[in-house]
Amino acid sequence: MTVALAPFVVDLPAVEARPRMPAGFRAVAVATGIKSSGGLDLGVLATTGGAASAAATFTTNRLPAASVQLSRANLERSGGRTCAVLSTSGCANAATGPAGDRDQAALADALADRLGVGPELTLALATGLIGSRLPVDAMRPWLDRLVPDRLMPGDTGLAALAEQLRTTDTRSKAASLRIKLPGRDGRHRGVIVCGVAKGVGMIHPRMATMLALLLTDATVEPAVLRTILGPIVERTWNQLTVDGDTSTNDTVFLLASGSAGTAPVEAGSPAGQALARALEAVARSLARQQAADGEGATTLVTCQVSGGRDTVEARAAARAVVASSLVKAAIHGRDPNWGRIAAALGNAHTGAGPVPVDPDRLTIAIAGVSVYAGEPLPFDRDVLAARMDAPEVVIRVDLGQGEAAAEAFGCDLTEQYVVENSTYTT
Amino acid sequence: MTVALAPFVVDLPAVEARPRMPAGFRAVAVATGIKSSGGLDLGVLATTGGAASAAATFTTNRLPAASVQLSRANLERSGGRTCAVLSTSGCANAATGPAGDRDQAALADALADRLGVGPELTLALATGLIGSRLPVDAMRPWLDRLVPDRLMPGDTGLAALAEQLRTTDTRSKAASLRIKLPGRDGRHRGVIVCGVAKGVGMIHPRMATMLALLLTDATVEPAVLRTILGPIVERTWNQLTVDGDTSTNDTVFLLASGSAGTAPVEAGSPAGQALARALEAVARSLARQQAADGEGATTLVTCQVSGGRDTVEARAAARAVVASSLVKAAIHGRDPNWGRIAAALGNAHTGAGPVPVDPDRLTIAIAGVSVYAGEPLPFDRDVLAARMDAPEVVIRVDLGQGEAAAEAFGCDLTEQYVVENSTYTT
Repeated sequence: MTVALAPFVVDLPAVEARPRMPAGFRAVAVATGIKSSGGLDLGVLATTGGAASAAATFTTNRLPAASVQLSRANLERSGGRTCAVLSTSGCANAATGPAGDRDQAALADALADRLGVGPELTLALATGLIGSRLPVDAMRPWLDRLVPDRLMPGDTGLAALAEQLRTTDTRSKAASLRIKLPGRDGRHRGVIVCGVAKGVGMIHPRMATMLALLLTDATVEPAVLRTILGPIVERTWNQLTVDGDTSTNDTVFLLASGSAGTAPVEAGSPAGQALARALEAVARSLARQQAADGEGATTLVTCQVSGGRDTVEARAAARAVVASSLVKAAIHGRDPNWGRIAAALGNAHTGAGPVPVDPDRLTIAIAGVSVYAGEPLPFDRDVLAARMDAPEVVIRVDLGQGEAAAEAFGCDLTEQYVVENSTYTT
Repeated sequence: MTVALAPFVVDLPAVEARPRMPAGFRAVAVATGIKSSGGLDLGVLATTGGAASAAATFTTNRLPAASVQLSRANLERSGGRTCAVLSTSGCANAATGPAGDRDQAALADALADRLGVGPELTLALATGLIGSRLPVDAMRPWLDRLVPDRLMPGDTGLAALAEQLRTTDTRSKAASLRIKLPGRDGRHRGVIVCGVAKGVGMIHPRMATMLALLLTDATVEPAVLRTILGPIVERTWNQLTVDGDTSTNDTVFLLASGSAGTAPVEAGSPAGQALARALEAVARSLARQQAADGEGATTLVTCQVSGGRDTVEARAAARAVVASSLVKAAIHGRDPNWGRIAAALGNAHTGAGPVPVDPDRLTIAIAGVSVYAGEPLPFDRDVLAARMDAPEVVIRVDLGQGEAAAEAFGCDLTEQYVVENSTYTT
């Protein structure tokens, strides 16, 4: 007996194979010695045509890093405008006390000085070891040398920035796609939407995210950017977990340079919807890249839930499955142990309380094979284990209670995760 | 510079080295073939002098096992009285649909029949693989053979029961202590308080627990037992986590046989307080045994939080630290990576929202060495790493915001946890 579950449709455009930088941005990255590996650890993104519109979401961790505090304050002071982002990796500059705040401000001042703008027109991203200080004196000469003359336009700058964001990531993460939006003259303009992001540990976004930078050359007011960004983050990064730990430094920035010459994009308009869909496609691609490259991970685990009473409950149910250590370990062992999926669903919680799960209406499928539908279903364990031996394992759940659907992204739990996080100080 | 943190005082009596069975109970355990290892998998506890008073707490998982549903219903029907507990290991009898409910009821009927009591005077504990069925036909003849003639009084019965509860536990878990309570004639009577429990995976109690059985021969009405049990569970098992997964089968039973001939114990009376303290000492010992024997674990991790605004927040902060995968992995590597502790504290949540953490007032010590007090403190990493190389690592946190204190229990995260949970179907 097999119970077929309807396919879960993700209605978003495909991202491109080669990430592209939108017009109006330049970037550079350099190794200043923060990372003991000698890798790129200081990145600068700057606009070329005046301030870009900006929106952001930040960590809900109650000990936010200095970079988060500075960026939040600057966005407020500037009314959602920015000329540059200073990105550091290898040092989180979190739990560093007042000295850490002074370090972050000194770098913002130096960058603003080089660009000839006010310091409130800069933002900051930081990732790395919590509790260590930034080597500001070693970093400042690099800003003098690189900004603004060595900033690189185009895809080279974007690639450098993506590379600089890496810490324990095994590969850099970027995505882009092109759309057409109406210009002020009514004729369509080509617009690029792109993003870079870092993973891959201390990832369990909650009303927030990890480090990601979304860029476009469309013309969009800050208020419209904020309207667009919130729901996208809810559906992508807030549905991502690697290890259940929410970092002190989580940040997503969305910057719009306006360099493509489009008419101002309004929220909810056809152009606004097209831009939002493109941004969500990029964000979803980055979240999936982050999950697939989770620390020690070998397998991207996607849980797609349908039949929820509402979206909040469907999202919570999907997150509970990909967050379960026991489900993650079973996926690693290619063990179709659906009982752990059922137990994880039974533990799903929203802010309002537990998600109701009715065992009589519940359906579960792993890698396309139905294993439970109101009762345990017979299935061939060896065949299913073989199907699970893939780079991505999709767990389909139908709660049988309504029309709401949601997905969540995670990864398997491996011995290598433990090795990486017990052998090294990260 | 060293900032001294005041010692965290646990004001409870010590448990005894050799666990003892209270008067009025007998037990037996046998291997019926549920466990493929051939280990003990069916246990029966029965009273010798009529029904005992009983109280219970159960899992909050929304897919509770058949054993949980049956026990909850029977306790309601009996008004908190019971004559026997049927305990099975190797099969959780969860997510087994209506057939699983019928299996559980058939075993309860058979046990009640052998004892000559109503089926509502039996309770059930079950642990093991979710989604598999109990071999009822193979088990029933064993009940006929063992009950009531082979039930063993005293410590032998208790040891058999503790052994039968094991699944992936590397050792059985039991604790007891003796106190004196006033008899009806005013002269004091010796009373035994004991408990057995199982670990060691899918443990993250939430308003509930895992499997544990607390027994005493004091005379206590069911309503008084319930008043005593709730706060104890809050301070012990609800502060325990192994892997963040809450099982479908979590159950704690507290049974009082009345066989010691004490006067009825009243809640809040000196006798009630003495009994509650003894029960909490046993519960705390069992919770610590469970944490120390967490799947794959090598180290008991205790987080003791002081300076909270209230107990609920202090408990949440302590739980957040021992639940963090990154903290657990760092402990495994003897890495004094206090930044992960700070990040975990920053993520602590109660049902009412995030726990406020003020970095200026926060103090953290690991294994007696202060590492953070409003700012990072210098310390000798090698010396601290050597101190962490112990069977228990205590993390002391002071939130600097009030007088409330709490502790939580967990274990390190090891490669072996992943091996156990990916290589075998458990």
